[in-house]
Amino acid sequence: MEKLSHLFTKTKRDAPQGEVAVNAILLERAGFIAKQMAGVYTLLPFGLRVVNKINTIIREELNAIGAQEILMPALQPKEIWEKTGRWNTANDVMYQFKDNSGKDVGLGWTHEEVITQIATSYIHSYKDLPKAVYQIQTKFRDEPRAKSGILRGREFVMKDLYSFHTDQKDRDDYYDKVKGTYHTIFKRIGLNALETAASGGAFSKLSHEFQVIAKSGEDTVFICETCSQGINKEIMQDAQMKCEHCGSTRVEKTSIEVGNIFKLGTRFSEALDLKYTDEEGKQNPVEMCSYGIGPTRVMGTIVEVSHDEKGIIWGESVAPYDCHIIEILNSKFETLNKSKNQNYKSETMEIINQLEKAGLEVLFDDRDDVSVGEKLADADLIGIPWRIVVSDRSIAAGGVEVKRRSEEESQIVPVDKLLDIIKPVP
Amino acid sequence: MEKLSHLFTKTKRDAPQGEVAVNAILLERAGFIAKQMAGVYTLLPFGLRVVNKINTIIREELNAIGAQEILMPALQPKEIWEKTGRWNTANDVMYQFKDNSGKDVGLGWTHEEVITQIATSYIHSYKDLPKAVYQIQTKFRDEPRAKSGILRGREFVMKDLYSFHTDQKDRDDYYDKVKGTYHTIFKRIGLNALETAASGGAFSKLSHEFQVIAKSGEDTVFICETCSQGINKEIMQDAQMKCEHCGSTRVEKTSIEVGNIFKLGTRFSEALDLKYTDEEGKQNPVEMCSYGIGPTRVMGTIVEVSHDEKGIIWGESVAPYDCHIIEILNSKFETLNKSKNQNYKSETMEIINQLEKAGLEVLFDDRDDVSVGEKLADADLIGIPWRIVVSDRSIAAGGVEVKRRSEEESQIVPVDKLLDIIKPVP
Repeated sequence: MEKLSHLFTKTKRDAPQGEVAVNAILLERAGFIAKQMAGVYTLLPFGLRVVNKINTIIREELNAIGAQEILMPALQPKEIWEKTGRWNTANDVMYQFKDNSGKDVGLGWTHEEVITQIATSYIHSYKDLPKAVYQIQTKFRDEPRAKSGILRGREFVMKDLYSFHTDQKDRDDYYDKVKGTYHTIFKRIGLNALETAASGGAFSKLSHEFQVIAKSGEDTVFICETCSQGINKEIMQDAQMKCEHCGSTRVEKTSIEVGNIFKLGTRFSEALDLKYTDEEGKQNPVEMCSYGIGPTRVMGTIVEVSHDEKGIIWGESVAPYDCHIIEILNSKFETLNKSKNQNYKSETMEIINQLEKAGLEVLFDDRDDVSVGEKLADADLIGIPWRIVVSDRSIAAGGVEVKRRSEEESQIVPVDKLLDIIKPVP
Repeated sequence: MEKLSHLFTKTKRDAPQGEVAVNAILLERAGFIAKQMAGVYTLLPFGLRVVNKINTIIREELNAIGAQEILMPALQPKEIWEKTGRWNTANDVMYQFKDNSGKDVGLGWTHEEVITQIATSYIHSYKDLPKAVYQIQTKFRDEPRAKSGILRGREFVMKDLYSFHTDQKDRDDYYDKVKGTYHTIFKRIGLNALETAASGGAFSKLSHEFQVIAKSGEDTVFICETCSQGINKEIMQDAQMKCEHCGSTRVEKTSIEVGNIFKLGTRFSEALDLKYTDEEGKQNPVEMCSYGIGPTRVMGTIVEVSHDEKGIIWGESVAPYDCHIIEILNSKFETLNKSKNQNYKSETMEIINQLEKAGLEVLFDDRDDVSVGEKLADADLIGIPWRIVVSDRSIAAGGVEVKRRSEEESQIVPVDKLLDIIKPVP
């Protein structure tokens, strides 16, 4: 249980200066993030909890398909990027500089070069394949425009998975498996992410994106509303407005990309000499794929698609806490009848214990210098799924007042029935 | 359970080129880390597991003293470092460069400036104090020499805690509490870390270090062998060789610093305008402390002080797995009597299930193309606390052969008695 009186952050009434994106305005006001500079944010206690929950879902699903977690460095030498020809082509997005010894280094915005080089130490034979490794790590991009809050950061958390295969068949099978896993991940996170064919041509199936339709997105996609698949803007020129699967007309949407998956083929293994010996003793370049999800961007996307004029509306699987408990002390009687209020406090503590025993995480607004109105407004702004108010009125009515953040109506629930309606995420 | 046949990494017989530090040689050979460039390493699956276990111990102990976790960015603007005068004084260790827009930015090697600035949003009154926040985050230092493996990195994981107080009394009380917590953390990690007075003078008590005595350390400390406290080299000039507490003579030691704690006073709060209003309505600068532990350095330190000529010897609280299971198939009979070997495999799986049900983590050497000698050598190199060998000989003797990595002798243990001697870390 976390008490609001103990929390490092406070909510802010006004929108932060210089922010135009809804995700940044609400996340900063509610104390999830703090801006350091354009595109660079601190994750405050609430924000880190949300990102950790997103990361846990990602880890569980990737571990289930045999991927192993590692952590690669941000600092990378020029040499490996020259081998793939990307040191010069990427210099518009890659922070590149010289260290004190005069050596050229850059900050990783993706890790194909690094992981391919590492894999040369461990992949030699067909017996060593397939393999899949991922990391959840901080990436850097020198973005010219960084006005979308945590949707487009100069520094951001990224999950990048890389897979290694003997041949295209094995590669494509695993690619399809990861594609299914991505659908599972976004579903568990609570995002309706649509699969869209991306660069490489509409029919080449070399790359796909996962797009969440939102007013504030930077991407344009063309979605078939019958089969829920789409294509992105870059490949629209080669495609028809009619979906080739079902014949329905595609609809143009402004959208947020929350994931992307690529068949890399042998582009990186050939450049960095990652080969394996097959059963006939012949050496071949390793087939590779890479797969990205941005957990901080995902947090921002949730806010973009799930908020109202009062604040954020978190889904249960990623909310920083499950329940937000507000105790309304009877201030009129506070001096005269201190013991009555003390009784509420101990009843509140019993409710909290009951919820925590059931595995629910509780945020408790125990502040005694804040008005009831401010407490309710803060609960709406922070956006935790279940609000529980303990008050004179609720006790008189037979319990506590329970309200879902996503619904308008509250209900009085007897304390011993609370766990019938509030349940932990499975 | 992880199978060695599935693991991304393999052990290496020979020491990696260019490494002189024992920690780097053993960790690279055993597949815990991979070198990217001097002082920059990838944490491979085993290494990430060890660092995560160290981080979990740190988190549990810091949460228990009311500290809250956040995650601050590495990219930092010149302006806040100029306010404290450290942009120019730190340019020998701080990576500093211009982004594409011409703005000066640096990579964080510590976060006093950033956290102090953030705190100005949330700390206004004495009612907002005390507060303590920490992060486990990647730091960057442009080290001129980086030859100590992961003891001195250019990029490394750091836990940094910052605390905020109304006055020196509250500050000193919390400082002492954290000092006690540091002793608990290092004890749980399995390191004998000695407390030494550091810069600020022997008697000013403004800063302390936690030092692990090791041949390979870069520091020199003077330890009182009676009271186990010491002083570091910088302040030895102001002190006597006799301990002021107990009168014993201090002994000079080469040592590794694994933690440090500082009373910052109002140096950063004054520079960055972090004030609070006291009960009389007067504004005062906030008293601060900072406290560091380097989890990747801690992993390297464990290897430096706990290894033998065969490999690493992990303590139970930080080992990547609890048990290393080796199945020795009877190769002589393998063709003739396949079903016999299959029986061992199912017996091994039962043992693994039993261990995992008890909460133990298992690494299973299931490789069928590796000799018994290599399997045993790999177990010694990787250094997991309990080795369990399932073989013809052990079954004939009534069970499985169990050996602690830290001991020479093995013993035959009946399968149903395994959990009497192998227990999960509490």
